[in-house]
Amino acid sequence: MSSWARVYITRMPPVSSIPPRLCLGPGPSPVPPRVLAALAHPTVGHLDPAFLALMDEVRDGLRHVFATTNPMTLAMSGTGSAGMEAVIVNLVEPGDRVLVGVNGVFGGRLAEVARRAGAEVTTVDAPWGRTLDRDALAAAIARTAPHVVAVVHAETSTGVANDIAGLADLVHARDGLLVVDCVTSLAGMPVEIDAWGVDAAYSGTQKCLSCPPGLSPVTFSPRAVARLDRRRTKVPSWYLDLTLLKSYWGLERAYHHTAPINMLYALHEALAIVREEGLPARFLRHRAAHERLPMLNAIAAPAGVDEAAIRRRLLDDFGIEIGGGLGDFKGKAWRIGLMGHGATPASVDTVVAALRAALA
Amino acid sequence: MSSWARVYITRMPPVSSIPPRLCLGPGPSPVPPRVLAALAHPTVGHLDPAFLALMDEVRDGLRHVFATTNPMTLAMSGTGSAGMEAVIVNLVEPGDRVLVGVNGVFGGRLAEVARRAGAEVTTVDAPWGRTLDRDALAAAIARTAPHVVAVVHAETSTGVANDIAGLADLVHARDGLLVVDCVTSLAGMPVEIDAWGVDAAYSGTQKCLSCPPGLSPVTFSPRAVARLDRRRTKVPSWYLDLTLLKSYWGLERAYHHTAPINMLYALHEALAIVREEGLPARFLRHRAAHERLPMLNAIAAPAGVDEAAIRRRLLDDFGIEIGGGLGDFKGKAWRIGLMGHGATPASVDTVVAALRAALA
Repeated sequence: MSSWARVYITRMPPVSSIPPRLCLGPGPSPVPPRVLAALAHPTVGHLDPAFLALMDEVRDGLRHVFATTNPMTLAMSGTGSAGMEAVIVNLVEPGDRVLVGVNGVFGGRLAEVARRAGAEVTTVDAPWGRTLDRDALAAAIARTAPHVVAVVHAETSTGVANDIAGLADLVHARDGLLVVDCVTSLAGMPVEIDAWGVDAAYSGTQKCLSCPPGLSPVTFSPRAVARLDRRRTKVPSWYLDLTLLKSYWGLERAYHHTAPINMLYALHEALAIVREEGLPARFLRHRAAHERLPMLNAIAAPAGVDEAAIRRRLLDDFGIEIGGGLGDFKGKAWRIGLMGHGATPASVDTVVAALRAALA
Repeated sequence: MSSWARVYITRMPPVSSIPPRLCLGPGPSPVPPRVLAALAHPTVGHLDPAFLALMDEVRDGLRHVFATTNPMTLAMSGTGSAGMEAVIVNLVEPGDRVLVGVNGVFGGRLAEVARRAGAEVTTVDAPWGRTLDRDALAAAIARTAPHVVAVVHAETSTGVANDIAGLADLVHARDGLLVVDCVTSLAGMPVEIDAWGVDAAYSGTQKCLSCPPGLSPVTFSPRAVARLDRRRTKVPSWYLDLTLLKSYWGLERAYHHTAPINMLYALHEALAIVREEGLPARFLRHRAAHERLPMLNAIAAPAGVDEAAIRRRLLDDFGIEIGGGLGDFKGKAWRIGLMGHGATPASVDTVVAALRAALA
């Protein structure tokens, strides 16, 4: 073990040697100093009364950004993909019919997670970069009477926003539940869980909330909770089982698992910033940044350009992170995110100037 | 929305109003200022070369504390219970026989997670507060030829340590895999994954590593990886699927999910502190603290004493957190943890003096 230890000691530079970056990729977005300071507040216990009060406030703050009064609104102890999995495995039982709208990576991931939960999955596909076709969704719902219909609000892989309003009526008419992926949209554009009749939604903290990644806000309507209460089988994941978790986030405060305390501090501060700015002003700010650079989020790389080399130059020479393409767009596109703290005119000017210089 | 917003604004005190606590419960343990400072380092992208280099160092640091050369050693993006679930759902397929040693809450949780993964579960039980009986384990292994045998190294619910050395021979003789829960033991007492022949182990960051909760270190032996590669069915959890995750932690660096960047900064610093102190010195420090207070971790509350009221007094009057009993011990015991940064003579003196005063 001694030679091992020696090798090891020679190669561990401190975390502080990681250079600062302007995060204009598909996430994480830039995290404000106030949120980082909250993250570093001394850790207390997950059953400490002061921490439980903070959890109540986080829940209130999440209800505010989701525009819902759903009692079952909380932050799952994992990143956005854990929230996706939590929603699916809690609401789907083996053999259930699940309809998924797919026009990018994350719709495809939803379908895969539902299949692993034992669902009979039908997809309604649209080309990458296009929105889902409402008539095609309506026809598929009428034909398959799905237990769950799941769509992505804002596809991080393409930058396309699917329209959610009006969809719930079609889903509820066949007694289904509407699930919406709000990972990239939450706190950056209007998300109206109650007004739209959405039954379950999940998000991530590292997009328009401008908080580090590590938690997944989720919300479940009373109809979704009733479905959960009627399950014939146990939720396959113990860690994500909301029938157990609701005792910790609810009145009983029963221990389930040790919550990621400091991450919840950070989310609390991020939600306080959202509250101070106000959602309408925040949505306008995001919209204004996007209008200054209308080809966002996905930009086709010019023919003959090595897109990865340009991204690496942006990072090394300018300290700016932007994203590469995923799936069908791999090697062909960039993804520039102007989310949360990064949705400013200065971010747009900076990334445009850097791209121009890198391509010159 | 306006009245809702008003109500909301009146009740959100800052995170900084959470009082400092001396965390001497069953976890989280006290987090050193250096680790909190690392946690607050500015967030960069999860595919940033500087961050990927840090992940390599985290992996090296985890191999060091696990005493293993296992290539598949990483931190799962969830708390310790997510690590437990990750190990089980990756190594168990529906219909597999799983044998679990149960002498506390966490052995029971292992059995439950394995059942949800579709396993035929047999348990070998011991009374709470006693160690597992090796002969009983050997007989059950011989009888059931389990695909997986899972035991808890140090039962957080009772403070009992089960002996692991020698167990692998019995398990491997029937071609099984040995899984060990190292949540409370890792970096506080010797854990010898390779020397003991353990095939998979998981831990948490908030115990003897003295890092905030939110990540779960895991390690898999080449035998365990071979089992994973031979699976006939997909891993039921997409989020915890190591066949996908190993591409992100491995050479390909393929995007799977957005890692909890800042939590990994903190774990990196916590592992650097472990390296500086040295594992042998760290184990001695933990042992010395425990020997000064030999009734640790679980203490029976004196008859007639309201154990919850005493815990509340410790918290409110002394700023000290200790834990209550779980399961069979609920309402009857306290759990005092002297882990990581908290395993010091000063912690022992402080908690003993406070308990004496609270009980007077």
